[in-house]
Amino acid sequence: MTDYYSRHGATLARAVDACDKRYSWTAYPESPSSKIHGEEKPRAGKARFEAMLGADYPLEQPGEMGRTGAEVSPYTGESLGITYPKMDVEVLYQAVVEGMPAWRKAGPQTRIGICLEILDRCAGQLFENAHATMHTSGQSYIMAFAGSGANALDRGLEALAYAHKAMADVPASADWERQFGKSGAARLEKQYQLMPRGIGVVICCATFPLWNGYPALCASLATGNPVVLKPHPSAILPVAMLTSVAREVLREAGFDPNLVTMVADTREEPATMPLLEHPATAIVDFTGSPGFGQWIERNCADKLVYTETAGCNSVVIESCDDLPAMASAIAHSLCQASAQMCTSVQNIHIPSDGIVAGGRKVSFDEVSAEIVAAVEKYLENPQVLCGTLVDDAILSTIERYRGLAAQYGRLLRDSAPLEYRDFPNARTASPLMLEVTEEARDIYRDEIFGPVSFIIRGASADDCLRDATTNARERGAITSHVYSVNEDFLDRAVDAYHEAGASVACNLVGMPINFAAAYSDYHVTGLNPAGNACLADLAFVANRFRIVQSKRMV
Amino acid sequence: MTDYYSRHGATLARAVDACDKRYSWTAYPESPSSKIHGEEKPRAGKARFEAMLGADYPLEQPGEMGRTGAEVSPYTGESLGITYPKMDVEVLYQAVVEGMPAWRKAGPQTRIGICLEILDRCAGQLFENAHATMHTSGQSYIMAFAGSGANALDRGLEALAYAHKAMADVPASADWERQFGKSGAARLEKQYQLMPRGIGVVICCATFPLWNGYPALCASLATGNPVVLKPHPSAILPVAMLTSVAREVLREAGFDPNLVTMVADTREEPATMPLLEHPATAIVDFTGSPGFGQWIERNCADKLVYTETAGCNSVVIESCDDLPAMASAIAHSLCQASAQMCTSVQNIHIPSDGIVAGGRKVSFDEVSAEIVAAVEKYLENPQVLCGTLVDDAILSTIERYRGLAAQYGRLLRDSAPLEYRDFPNARTASPLMLEVTEEARDIYRDEIFGPVSFIIRGASADDCLRDATTNARERGAITSHVYSVNEDFLDRAVDAYHEAGASVACNLVGMPINFAAAYSDYHVTGLNPAGNACLADLAFVANRFRIVQSKRMV
Repeated sequence: MTDYYSRHGATLARAVDACDKRYSWTAYPESPSSKIHGEEKPRAGKARFEAMLGADYPLEQPGEMGRTGAEVSPYTGESLGITYPKMDVEVLYQAVVEGMPAWRKAGPQTRIGICLEILDRCAGQLFENAHATMHTSGQSYIMAFAGSGANALDRGLEALAYAHKAMADVPASADWERQFGKSGAARLEKQYQLMPRGIGVVICCATFPLWNGYPALCASLATGNPVVLKPHPSAILPVAMLTSVAREVLREAGFDPNLVTMVADTREEPATMPLLEHPATAIVDFTGSPGFGQWIERNCADKLVYTETAGCNSVVIESCDDLPAMASAIAHSLCQASAQMCTSVQNIHIPSDGIVAGGRKVSFDEVSAEIVAAVEKYLENPQVLCGTLVDDAILSTIERYRGLAAQYGRLLRDSAPLEYRDFPNARTASPLMLEVTEEARDIYRDEIFGPVSFIIRGASADDCLRDATTNARERGAITSHVYSVNEDFLDRAVDAYHEAGASVACNLVGMPINFAAAYSDYHVTGLNPAGNACLADLAFVANRFRIVQSKRMV
Repeated sequence: MTDYYSRHGATLARAVDACDKRYSWTAYPESPSSKIHGEEKPRAGKARFEAMLGADYPLEQPGEMGRTGAEVSPYTGESLGITYPKMDVEVLYQAVVEGMPAWRKAGPQTRIGICLEILDRCAGQLFENAHATMHTSGQSYIMAFAGSGANALDRGLEALAYAHKAMADVPASADWERQFGKSGAARLEKQYQLMPRGIGVVICCATFPLWNGYPALCASLATGNPVVLKPHPSAILPVAMLTSVAREVLREAGFDPNLVTMVADTREEPATMPLLEHPATAIVDFTGSPGFGQWIERNCADKLVYTETAGCNSVVIESCDDLPAMASAIAHSLCQASAQMCTSVQNIHIPSDGIVAGGRKVSFDEVSAEIVAAVEKYLENPQVLCGTLVDDAILSTIERYRGLAAQYGRLLRDSAPLEYRDFPNARTASPLMLEVTEEARDIYRDEIFGPVSFIIRGASADDCLRDATTNARERGAITSHVYSVNEDFLDRAVDAYHEAGASVACNLVGMPINFAAAYSDYHVTGLNPAGNACLADLAFVANRFRIVQSKRMV
């Protein structure tokens, strides 16, 4: 058997170091540019994607009882025509647990090595993954290559680094000797073994199918648990490709491929509940809507539950150095991936009497207009930045908030379809922006999925901060931004967001502010309703295995 | 302010090293012998205990609405006459959270230092704690000094070592720099802060009031969470003494003493549910009955729950070297603390056709008779080993199983009161032992609290192993023992117990087999119904805090 741990050991060591020091690093290529990859690789990747269309996806799992799958490309409006096995969960689960004893006994190094090889092979198919992600999640090609590709692989490696640290904390054996009263010395040899908990179900989301897919798979599989991947019905293909790679590596390494399986479904015939309700499911990783995430947190008390959902991410503007730069940074967030990211900004709080920008007093309306103008600028060439909408429902959402604009404030910028030359039928929408006061709190404090945002008039900067942090505490936030040149205000803001259980970024310009860096940014605090787990920390992995010991008198 | 972290740093470092290598070590004196302590310390400790009798316990907490407490000594049958504050939980909780921001900002080192000082001062009152434990939990003096004293303090220090490791894994800050396309380099300074989760409620048990008290307090308090201690109504005093020490140290260090409080109650007017149901309770540590523990695990899904309960601990005898030594080791477990320990043996499985002992074939009846004889031997001088019964209900339990003996098998050894010269009114009972077949499974596979045990006739050694491990998996086990000179059998047994989610000890003789060593034995696996948490591992601490970050462009 190939020693994958040795092959990829340097990568793991580097990831551990990056997690410890949290500098900028990536193990995988983030750009699909042919300047890096040449012409052939991108072409071959696209061809491999196209070859999968209109066919039965080749995945042989025990318990297949038919075929399922109804993915439709948000770029073309056409069905992908791919079918996947429709699974009998009982039969599948019986097969899944068979490989557990051998997998447990293989030990941490072997398991980690295999996970490293899985990530490495997935990195080798980033081009076909990018096309698969585009035509399911609707992301732009570049975002699909990076966000749900390389960056997600980095999160997988990061989770693996933590799994390694947590497991390495437990020694394999110990000698133990002591006196008990007058009866002489007792000497014991002790062996400590790591035990898996049981089947880990990974519920992937529609927009970034592998964002939690790689880390959850690595965290559970490395610690000895079989993994059942449950893709969103609209984004199965990227998850199927990961499933195939994982099964291939396991098989080649002499383990049961059923340690990684996939249960696909359609919206009409969902398959999630039988997995959540099954007593053999010991771990649930969930990324998706806050509503379902919180339901799982409350109703799966007999399982370990790790969630990442969403919140009403805010910007509080107190002052700034460079108004156009700030406006551009915020506008980028409103446009990127059509604001379907868990880090997209939704609520922009500006004091009613304006701010000081670059030493100059600027009115609320001017700041607001500058952000709208920055959005328009990005929309001159939207395809790379905005991508498409993952779901028809987002169009109804936009319609609804357009209708609420006059009632709660005014329409600052209307949403309209975007035109993509390559994809005339793409499902798209430019940002809808409402200007409101804090009296509209009821409509802006929950996450609105899609390109809907609010510029909110606050009584003062502190009032803006209070509203934004209250919403973060009560309704959740994954990213929060503050712009201020005032040190006191920045300190107060950092403290207020932290007390609300939220992280905060200050004065970010000249970079995509939605970006959360693996190995450096702890993603999701677990302290507000936007999720209970973090990518990645020790808590994400330390409880996925348990310790049993044997001691023996010598 | 005294730098407690520096003062006790060497102790912490030694504890971390002991946890990493898991050798034998203790930080606290395990023996109350006057050869070690002199005559004065034990006398002064006893005097301090006696001075607390018949008085209002001095504990001033916000929200006192009367007095409570109805402890009765199992040694004298008399009321201790001590009253404690009866708390209004709403008022208390409002006060408890006030100190949280300062406590969080104090940082890990300061918090750990204060916890180390708390443990150190508790070590200074081990004598009064021993008397308080005797006259509430009913333990023998020596056991009260060690088991609920020094050994529990070691578990507290162990939990602190893990809290230190988990928190040290998060760096305080990082520099992060990278290119984004052509727009130049982005450079961010990042700060990472640890955030507490909220109030930690620690539910202590009747028999070992501080066994989980010290570790849960240390784990939660060191990670920034206030702690509310909830003693068992029959064993309040030891918990009150810990509460006083913690409050004193916090106050002296300039922190709000309400970061550690106690809510006492009586059986008639229990106070646990309002704590469990309170939304501000974020963490629950529970030691007690399996029934209540499992209720908490299932019904407190919005809180972190750590439980240690009990199971039907087993011995499987396949063969042995030295029959009298083995019998004595097992008998010691049946007698020690009147089998009220979570590590006490209950079910002794012996093949029907006997075993080979020291090369000689020995019948089932002979093995069984040898164990009974070993029990009789310990009962010649029972006070130090057996202590008293914590609860009248145990006498009814014994009565019930005595009544079942003839129906399910036969009475092997009857239980009777023990005579303690110093305490003529002590509530005591010697071991009740039943001989049964596996058809009596329904009566022996649940934990029976108190000195009731079964010698179970199995069809073969493998059959004994199968029954014992099935019971461990389905009903829980904290310790399990195997005696065999057969390497194959030992390997099979270790594997079978591990697959059942249980740890196992092989061939232990010449030492108290109930003993679980801090820093070396992972206590409770979390994989069977005897509890979901371990004293101590990274999983016990890593999720008690969360991480928030601020990043700032430079």
